[in-house]
Amino acid sequence: MEVVRTIVQTRQAVGAARASGRKIALIPTMGYLHAGHLSLVRLAKTRADYIVVSLFVNPTQFGPQEDFSKYPRDEARDRGMLEAEGIDLLFAPEVRSIYPQEPRITFAIRGLADHLCGARRPSHFNGVLLIVSKLFNVVQPDIAVFGQKDLQQLLLIQRMVEELNFPLEIVAGPTVREPDGLAMSSRNSYLTSAERRQSSILYRALQRAKALMEGGEREAERVIAQMRELIRSEAPLGQIDYISIVDLDGLQPRKKLDGRCAIALAVHFGRARLIDNLVLEISADGVREIPAIV
Amino acid sequence: MEVVRTIVQTRQAVGAARASGRKIALIPTMGYLHAGHLSLVRLAKTRADYIVVSLFVNPTQFGPQEDFSKYPRDEARDRGMLEAEGIDLLFAPEVRSIYPQEPRITFAIRGLADHLCGARRPSHFNGVLLIVSKLFNVVQPDIAVFGQKDLQQLLLIQRMVEELNFPLEIVAGPTVREPDGLAMSSRNSYLTSAERRQSSILYRALQRAKALMEGGEREAERVIAQMRELIRSEAPLGQIDYISIVDLDGLQPRKKLDGRCAIALAVHFGRARLIDNLVLEISADGVREIPAIV
Repeated sequence: MEVVRTIVQTRQAVGAARASGRKIALIPTMGYLHAGHLSLVRLAKTRADYIVVSLFVNPTQFGPQEDFSKYPRDEARDRGMLEAEGIDLLFAPEVRSIYPQEPRITFAIRGLADHLCGARRPSHFNGVLLIVSKLFNVVQPDIAVFGQKDLQQLLLIQRMVEELNFPLEIVAGPTVREPDGLAMSSRNSYLTSAERRQSSILYRALQRAKALMEGGEREAERVIAQMRELIRSEAPLGQIDYISIVDLDGLQPRKKLDGRCAIALAVHFGRARLIDNLVLEISADGVREIPAIV
Repeated sequence: MEVVRTIVQTRQAVGAARASGRKIALIPTMGYLHAGHLSLVRLAKTRADYIVVSLFVNPTQFGPQEDFSKYPRDEARDRGMLEAEGIDLLFAPEVRSIYPQEPRITFAIRGLADHLCGARRPSHFNGVLLIVSKLFNVVQPDIAVFGQKDLQQLLLIQRMVEELNFPLEIVAGPTVREPDGLAMSSRNSYLTSAERRQSSILYRALQRAKALMEGGEREAERVIAQMRELIRSEAPLGQIDYISIVDLDGLQPRKKLDGRCAIALAVHFGRARLIDNLVLEISADGVREIPAIV
């Protein structure tokens, strides 16, 4: 595994791999890796033969009141994990290499960021699209792998790739969960043990929603009310940020449930803001989960 | 010269050229070519050995009240001119190939589009950055050539390339002029013969400004007042849109003149809105014109 810090080194290393005919995969991460990240690396290996992981806590996707400075970091541990996975290149730049000057460019994708996390974190997705564009242009991968846990991010990036004709394919990796259902996240490290015990409520609320739909419920409002009630009664340490059922094209709220939709929620537990979602296909045959939409 | 209509064909043709080790240049145009465009093709040939010209009247850079539908088009003539120049690939897509759906992504670059044409044409540069990003991702050129006549566009694209790390170099081509000084533009075809006669006033006003600075004038306001007066007295058919002297970093108006600055103006003549500019370096040694900033 080669470790590089600069854009020039990255282009050199990837350029040599490309020249030798290898298919390039990029997995962008903010480090503090967990089994979810590693599943994306393994997925990438089934589709490409030169695996690049970027490790960069991207300041432009954090709001002024958010946890940029406290976001967990442990590069030595991350390096060990990636070495063990047998990746080819780790790109771990410093902030000044990525942002030599204050960025002035801003992105927006009408509609797709109005709801869910976009409504709560106004500049977040602008920062995400900025860093992802930069990484795409630096690495020029054939595929880029993102976790479906960050569904809104995944859809925004997918749309950006389509609209700007980036010459690459986006691949989604299914959410990886702890034994009790909690979605893996670097921010789970913020949880106290009491919060950790209650935090599986996000997954359980999603499963409750799915069960209701399997039982024939087609009113989004009633599903959401039951999820809300479950969280209130079983996770008193949790503060609901949002619970929403949206379509997958525009991420607009749905009233009646049919076709493809996503149930998404965000719940605060102490310092941690946890998100999770389930993508479901509702048809006459029943309710089917779609763990990877692309 | 190969002529292609689709993104897939373009990628195929350019990919083959790249695989054979050729350096790729892109010259984006909206067609109705003139000597200015051809000078960019010739400049590209000194820097690259596979020349791609795109011909696309981009709807997203026209405002709702602007001249999209009336913009002059003559593909047969353009093809003949490009064939004569010996370019390798003409990419002339239809609108639906470039925009299969209504675009939702928007770009902005803080500061750089506040003044000059950006202030008058609010969504114009968003559309420019959109189409240029798309063309960069479709063609993946090593260099892309733009005319310095569209100075604000050039600076915005240059900034976008820097901020998003597009793997290519922007090259500026000097403004090409008619014998009387009028900058070449496809929109000059809108001018009546009376308007055409008076339209050299843009160039003459720029030369007056330069002469004043060479004479020691360092107050932007006084230079602009004299340009304004010259246009009023000698070109009664002209309606001044703006006259501005700005710095080249942020395109912000300057009061005192020193270092690098651009004198830029836009003047309406009938249906045509004409723009022109002069980039000057003012130092103790005098005033020097910079025909190509990159």
